[in-house]
Amino acid sequence: MSDSLPPELVDLRRSIDNIDAAVVHLLAERFKCTQQVGRLKAAQGMPPADPEREEAQVARLRELADAAGLDPVFAEKFLNFVIAEVINHHRQIAETR
Amino acid sequence: MSDSLPPELVDLRRSIDNIDAAVVHLLAERFKCTQQVGRLKAAQGMPPADPEREEAQVARLRELADAAGLDPVFAEKFLNFVIAEVINHHRQIAETR
Repeated sequence: MSDSLPPELVDLRRSIDNIDAAVVHLLAERFKCTQQVGRLKAAQGMPPADPEREEAQVARLRELADAAGLDPVFAEKFLNFVIAEVINHHRQIAETR
Repeated sequence: MSDSLPPELVDLRRSIDNIDAAVVHLLAERFKCTQQVGRLKAAQGMPPADPEREEAQVARLRELADAAGLDPVFAEKFLNFVIAEVINHHRQIAETR
């Protein structure tokens, strides 16, 4: 199938696949951290969500994205997407205690 | 504010922030690749979306996620989230030619 694709496209797709593998491994590590956070919060009776922390995370990531040439709006959407999953995990941890 | 937080939580948040910075930089690099893909596809009159490629990407990322201890369902949602943004970019590139 890829025989008929422009070689430049095949090459770019290989780079995209490498980047995706790196991101998946980083996200796996991130969820290990947030699962520890979830257990800690549940043990201390802290709420799963923390709007002040999330606001600081968004502001920081938007700045980092801007400096790296990534659309800050996308960076914010991405963080919200990940945080929504994390809050789900925290709720599950709190509920199963 | 963070004075009142458990030190373990502060430490975990620092790790999460480091991971997020790495992910943002990788995503910046990924969009550089997909923008080149977009220009190439537009130049060759190829459609912005490629369901066969996306299917292969999903299958591969689910496997990688599983091996890394990340929920494969989340990995698939993540990839779909990123691809949706990429297809938007490709459409914009094709339309502004």
